[in-house]
Amino acid sequence: AAVDKDVDFANYFCTYAFLFHQKEMLSDRVRMDAYYNAIFENKHHFNGKAVLDVGTGSGILAIWSAQAGARKVYAVEATKMSEHARALVKANNLEHVVEVIEGSMEDVTLPEKVDVIISEWMGYFLLRESMFDSVICARDRWLKPTGAMYPSHARMWFAPIRTGMGERKLGDYQSAMDDWYNFVDDTKTYYGVDMSVLTNPFSEEQKKYYLQTSLWNHLHPHQVIGTAAIIKDIDCLTASVSDIEEVRSKFSLSITMENTKLCGFGGWFDVHFRGRSEDPAAQEIILTTAPSIDYSTHWGQQVFLLDPPIRVSEGDNLNASFLMTRSKENHRLMEVELGYEIQQQSGKLLAPFKNKYYIE
Amino acid sequence: AAVDKDVDFANYFCTYAFLFHQKEMLSDRVRMDAYYNAIFENKHHFNGKAVLDVGTGSGILAIWSAQAGARKVYAVEATKMSEHARALVKANNLEHVVEVIEGSMEDVTLPEKVDVIISEWMGYFLLRESMFDSVICARDRWLKPTGAMYPSHARMWFAPIRTGMGERKLGDYQSAMDDWYNFVDDTKTYYGVDMSVLTNPFSEEQKKYYLQTSLWNHLHPHQVIGTAAIIKDIDCLTASVSDIEEVRSKFSLSITMENTKLCGFGGWFDVHFRGRSEDPAAQEIILTTAPSIDYSTHWGQQVFLLDPPIRVSEGDNLNASFLMTRSKENHRLMEVELGYEIQQQSGKLLAPFKNKYYIE
Ligand SMILES: Nc1ncnc2c1ncn2[C@@H]1O[C@H](CSCC[C@H](N)C(=O)O)[C@@H](O)[C@H]1O
Ligand SMILES: Nc1ncnc2c1ncn2[C@@H]1O[C@H](CSCC[C@H](N)C(=O)O)[C@@H](O)[C@H]1O
Repeated sequence: AAVDKDVDFANYFCTYAFLFHQKEMLSDRVRMDAYYNAIFENKHHFNGKAVLDVGTGSGILAIWSAQAGARKVYAVEATKMSEHARALVKANNLEHVVEVIEGSMEDVTLPEKVDVIISEWMGYFLLRESMFDSVICARDRWLKPTGAMYPSHARMWFAPIRTGMGERKLGDYQSAMDDWYNFVDDTKTYYGVDMSVLTNPFSEEQKKYYLQTSLWNHLHPHQVIGTAAIIKDIDCLTASVSDIEEVRSKFSLSITMENTKLCGFGGWFDVHFRGRSEDPAAQEIILTTAPSIDYSTHWGQQVFLLDPPIRVSEGDNLNASFLMTRSKENHRLMEVELGYEIQQQSGKLLAPFKNKYYIE
Repeated sequence: AAVDKDVDFANYFCTYAFLFHQKEMLSDRVRMDAYYNAIFENKHHFNGKAVLDVGTGSGILAIWSAQAGARKVYAVEATKMSEHARALVKANNLEHVVEVIEGSMEDVTLPEKVDVIISEWMGYFLLRESMFDSVICARDRWLKPTGAMYPSHARMWFAPIRTGMGERKLGDYQSAMDDWYNFVDDTKTYYGVDMSVLTNPFSEEQKKYYLQTSLWNHLHPHQVIGTAAIIKDIDCLTASVSDIEEVRSKFSLSITMENTKLCGFGGWFDVHFRGRSEDPAAQEIILTTAPSIDYSTHWGQQVFLLDPPIRVSEGDNLNASFLMTRSKENHRLMEVELGYEIQQQSGKLLAPFKNKYYIE
């Protein structure tokens, strides 16, 4: 389905027009350190070069690129944040290098092809927001054949976890239903209308909201109870939209903790700054959003709950199939179908499960 | 400016598609009692008549109209909630009377003109959401010359209040700024970029958010420290869009409490069910959202803060001018310009104030 640009603006871009939101990203030290180091430890990729920053926001990556010696930086931003970016560029005395362009990347015309495309396009669980589409579009139109992508690679991870969130959410769902039954009684008693025919749709709506929508969380590494699998590996230089529109993966996970509960799964991502294989980074930088005690990011991890949890133990194996597609109503949101079966260490096979989730 | 229907859907209608949200309205006993009594204590307006319910949501008002004896009820709803309304009508055995029509009121064609238009179109501070436009459109096209509007009248109220919210919000604003200054320092130290040029725009953004956006609140009647003024009086049978597009009012308020603080203003509304002057309601019903201990509604009141508060006392007079317009970006949101001067009982005139607010 074609994307209505104005609807997309109302749904998606509007939050990026707030400095408050840009500041949240600019305060994420893990994110900032990774991009900062990727640029300044690989100055040879920037020095004297033309750079394109896709979605410059406050302008930070464009400014760093200029400080690292870029000859020219095109900083494209769809929202009015472009005006703040322009002011920031000027206040940092880089207006002779950085040109801020307000507009959608898809619509913008540059006067030349560039040596580097830099962008911070990653959403929750990597692909939420579908902003990488715009980076692909920019790359295909504006990157020189010898050009480099920053970041150059991206991966999605999936791992079995334990968490108390499931019980809390189940409790929330159950209270909502208790409330509903009282509401049905009251509406019949006081207002003469029988609402019970809406009980099922209401329950579906609430289940979707509380139990099937993936949850933002900072997982502690101890909550990961098994091996983590890479479910998608993206080469930013060659990936096409059709490569990322759907993420389909079959993989195995093993439980590495004794006698515990499988309460759900955690999803996260990492991106790598490797330059190009013909012209590799002097220093490869990795930005990971994996569970960590000291290095948490604003992305956190996405939690997909199981209801109810399943008793598992060390040596149990999980064979899973994962399918992530874009929501029909909004191409920036995702739907996940997860199927899996558990083979206990004893060899016994548990009945297979299948769940549907929404990344909203 | 023309309204983009799809953007409007993304911004506005989407919440109404959730049963959870409809249930919140259906659980507002003050609201429900008012409409229930308006219908059932004035059955002669409904009995044997054709009724149009503008924005039927769950279908509740349409069902009551049918239960009160309507010959035919057209229940128009823009969202997919129409499907639940249809199921509810059927479960309550009224499908021979109530016809649920999915669509925008503006686009729908009815097979006949109607005797009654009923609608629950009121947003925060009455006019937020601008849904009354759709009721006016329905009335001009589909109400018989002898027809009645339910509700028939609506009024906006404005009163001086005291509240601790202002200090809390001022504190929030100040913490946000403290945080900002730390952020500017850190960004300079660690990342070599001077963000201080964005301090003013950030401060403006945060002020707008914390101090200039009207706040939803349940005011206690004791918090009202003076007389309340009616700043708009609407006859639903005759009002045109141009009558409500802008609300302009000059009015006076007197402080009725000794030695207190004017911390801001509260805004609320009431609507009346009077039938038509040629065919008045047997029993006039009033739905008020004024501050009340026992009868609070989901609308609450809208609070407009003063920063800083002003010492006032009994007998002080306030002369105010009020202008509410629609936001350019979204015609369903409002902007308020409030000017006022205080004449103390002693006769002394304080310097006049002027504030700008946003109803988001
Ligand atoms: N297609 C597109 N064209 C232009 N800007 C886009 C875009 N898609 C997303 N953006 C912008 O990209 C930004 C992503 S957030 C990252 C901001 C900045 N580069 C930083 O690292 O801090 C947002 O400001 C968003 O408005
Ligand atoms: N122009 C329009 N055409 C059709 N439906 C509209 C409309 N503007 C608003 N609505 C619908 O009107 C409803 C208002 S809420 C009131 C719902 C119901 N009448 C009740 O009293 O409980 C929402 O469901 C909204 O989707």
